[in-house]
Amino acid sequence: MNAPLAASQIDPALLEGLRALLGARVSTSESDRAQHGRDESRHAARLPDAVCRAMSTEEVAAIVKLCAAHDTPIVAYGAGSSLEGALIPLKGGVSLDLTSMNQILSVRAEDLDATVQAGVTRKQLNAHLRDTGLFFPVDPGADATIGGMAATRASGTNAVRYGTMRENVVNLTVVLSDGRVIRTRSRAKKSSAGYDLTGLFVGQEGTLGIITEVTVRLYGIPEVMAAATCSFPTVEAAVDTVIQTIQMGIPISRVELLDDRAIEAVNAYSKLTLPVTPTLFFEFAGSQSGVEEQAAIVEELAKGEGASNWRWSTDADERSKLWQARHDIHWAIRALRPGAKGWGTDVCVPISALAEVIREVRKETSQQSFGTTLVGHVGDGNFHLGMQIDPDDPAEWAKANEINDRMVKHAIRLGGTCTGEHGVGIGKMKFMREEHGEALDVMHLIKNALDPKGIFNPGKVLPA
Amino acid sequence: MNAPLAASQIDPALLEGLRALLGARVSTSESDRAQHGRDESRHAARLPDAVCRAMSTEEVAAIVKLCAAHDTPIVAYGAGSSLEGALIPLKGGVSLDLTSMNQILSVRAEDLDATVQAGVTRKQLNAHLRDTGLFFPVDPGADATIGGMAATRASGTNAVRYGTMRENVVNLTVVLSDGRVIRTRSRAKKSSAGYDLTGLFVGQEGTLGIITEVTVRLYGIPEVMAAATCSFPTVEAAVDTVIQTIQMGIPISRVELLDDRAIEAVNAYSKLTLPVTPTLFFEFAGSQSGVEEQAAIVEELAKGEGASNWRWSTDADERSKLWQARHDIHWAIRALRPGAKGWGTDVCVPISALAEVIREVRKETSQQSFGTTLVGHVGDGNFHLGMQIDPDDPAEWAKANEINDRMVKHAIRLGGTCTGEHGVGIGKMKFMREEHGEALDVMHLIKNALDPKGIFNPGKVLPA
Repeated sequence: MNAPLAASQIDPALLEGLRALLGARVSTSESDRAQHGRDESRHAARLPDAVCRAMSTEEVAAIVKLCAAHDTPIVAYGAGSSLEGALIPLKGGVSLDLTSMNQILSVRAEDLDATVQAGVTRKQLNAHLRDTGLFFPVDPGADATIGGMAATRASGTNAVRYGTMRENVVNLTVVLSDGRVIRTRSRAKKSSAGYDLTGLFVGQEGTLGIITEVTVRLYGIPEVMAAATCSFPTVEAAVDTVIQTIQMGIPISRVELLDDRAIEAVNAYSKLTLPVTPTLFFEFAGSQSGVEEQAAIVEELAKGEGASNWRWSTDADERSKLWQARHDIHWAIRALRPGAKGWGTDVCVPISALAEVIREVRKETSQQSFGTTLVGHVGDGNFHLGMQIDPDDPAEWAKANEINDRMVKHAIRLGGTCTGEHGVGIGKMKFMREEHGEALDVMHLIKNALDPKGIFNPGKVLPA
Repeated sequence: MNAPLAASQIDPALLEGLRALLGARVSTSESDRAQHGRDESRHAARLPDAVCRAMSTEEVAAIVKLCAAHDTPIVAYGAGSSLEGALIPLKGGVSLDLTSMNQILSVRAEDLDATVQAGVTRKQLNAHLRDTGLFFPVDPGADATIGGMAATRASGTNAVRYGTMRENVVNLTVVLSDGRVIRTRSRAKKSSAGYDLTGLFVGQEGTLGIITEVTVRLYGIPEVMAAATCSFPTVEAAVDTVIQTIQMGIPISRVELLDDRAIEAVNAYSKLTLPVTPTLFFEFAGSQSGVEEQAAIVEELAKGEGASNWRWSTDADERSKLWQARHDIHWAIRALRPGAKGWGTDVCVPISALAEVIREVRKETSQQSFGTTLVGHVGDGNFHLGMQIDPDDPAEWAKANEINDRMVKHAIRLGGTCTGEHGVGIGKMKFMREEHGEALDVMHLIKNALDPKGIFNPGKVLPA
């Protein structure tokens, strides 16, 4: 959505200070501000009063000190790919663009870790690692910055095997609200030395501090990778197959569910002829014999649940063909209804509750005027219902809102969460009390202790 | 060490309130107080003024409210197996014994999780799980309570494969310093819904809240387990073998190092004839072919580093024979010097620095009058130098202190931590500033926000 253009309200003294520090890397131009006022979500844009491009942790610290002295809000900006409005500067102020902090500072193959500046993207890191035999597994849809991924506790299709940013951040360099710089933790693989500040700053969405450097875990690239797809009579049968797979400890590297409507969308978009029925996409990794063994067990489990059409391959080209439908889903959904605005929901539930939540929401969405598709990181109990809304039809928005509300509350009742990987941002704040109860008050205590002036990303994550 | 006996200083009004609540489950007897004033560490005992045995979260909340109203310290007590004085009531007050809270509340096989009261021990949970094909992997040496393990962010030999309590706690029920009860998180496998309170309360050692219930992750018991032992010419050769194993992504389930002196100790204690040289103990798990494949690769790597004497077995009896030396180490070390007091250090470093830290400290310990042994969770870069000190020789204590100080500082300089798994308690507080720098101030901000009166385990974790 476009932001309403408005003149920058920045305090002239602050602007002068920022210019003295950053020169031409401060901007109040409309185009810069407009670019930094919107994300990939349905949330209304809002322009920052200025955009600052920082090159180092020291510069970030100096910017924060200046802003703090002028009680001016600061919102960190990375790839701009937030899906819940996390980067929209609701109260104006400074959008702190960290994309120029794109240096890979060190790769330590022996320790299986790497330290990068916050603006390095995941694809950039993996391209850099290409010759080492190592990789960084966390893979949200977008080529997000690693700082942004840490700030939202991102994950993706690899999480079922490798975990999320929670498990894959070793430590962070963070600028606090008074401009002090801390490192959250040592580089030791494990530690019992005090409070887990790394965990605290992963997922805080820029409300407690600005992440400027990230040390992440790396993994050896598996010797062999293989893919399979498989059609199921029902969503339940697919989910049961996944539950059994995980209970048996099969170290599956990816397992994604597409419902019949998502399959329809990719068939149309990519001219495929997949059976229009719930489908699982698998990836296996390991040694040759390990992969074959895994696949044979999973095939057996799937067939026990009535699956058909088991197709598999270890060949890279064939693999990407099998996964094509999954890869195309974003564009396929968009193509369903040109001009529509997409809304990707993001609940995550204990896997025992997954089929029930999906069944309920599909019952409801089957009666709507707008198209919906369902794609799930089903090994983690996380799925995205995509709704294609006419941006000019308030009745559709209201209905979509209703569907999302009901689905989220259902998920929370069954032990789940309002967001598996997109973050709270603006859109999920209204569910925080219901999900957390009085634990939300503890989050407020921490926010007030670490950012007493409330300059970091105000109006986000914690409802007032 | 025995505590100096002293009369209980408890406020009579508080005692009356506690008795009204708990009846005979409040005690001020010397024997109860003495039992709750000491742990397994070298730290001097200190008696609490009263011992309260709670049966439920509600009782814990009521006890906390009473103590808060009387500004009386509270220290949680589980199995009493702390190695750093975490449970010693430095400022007196109430020792809150949670061992009666020993109910396993639910096991959800489909979701691979279980919820237990804080006083359930790890062996109790695994015995309960026996028929489910599932297990809980975190295994510190002692049969600790799961609440205590969460509070100290414990780990053990399985951490190299399954992670520590940080990775294996799903959520916690916690009583706050004002008596309110929170649940830190949903049961979803992943979530981006706000600050990671689970992470914050795991490892806080009872200084931010009292953990009363814990939901932990469970895993399927592997089909096949196999063990191997292998002798190395040097510690470096052993460590290099482990580095290569982990880099290749071999999902090894355990790998433990015993140095030559530890081998000498177990040879003497268990009448074994192992070659007196650095030795690795491996455990492999998975399918039959997977285990054989893993073992073959590791054997190859070990031989490339000059290893000899590779012995392995998939038979359970033979396996436990191979691991006997590792299992016996605690008693073997004790037997080295009857009457001595053991001091188990606990640094953890990036694995690339492990050989160097071990080499330095072995150089120093080789010149001491007291015996030392080295046992390492080497896949995680964590090791325990055990020192057998004459309790009546201040010169030995001073020397041991010096050795530990130097080793910890060396570890911190190389990117490591003062404690890999024992916790800070009393003994590691002096290293916290050096390890964390200004991040320590953030820990203080959090402590002050969550426990403004300082009633929870005062004098621990954070140096004043």
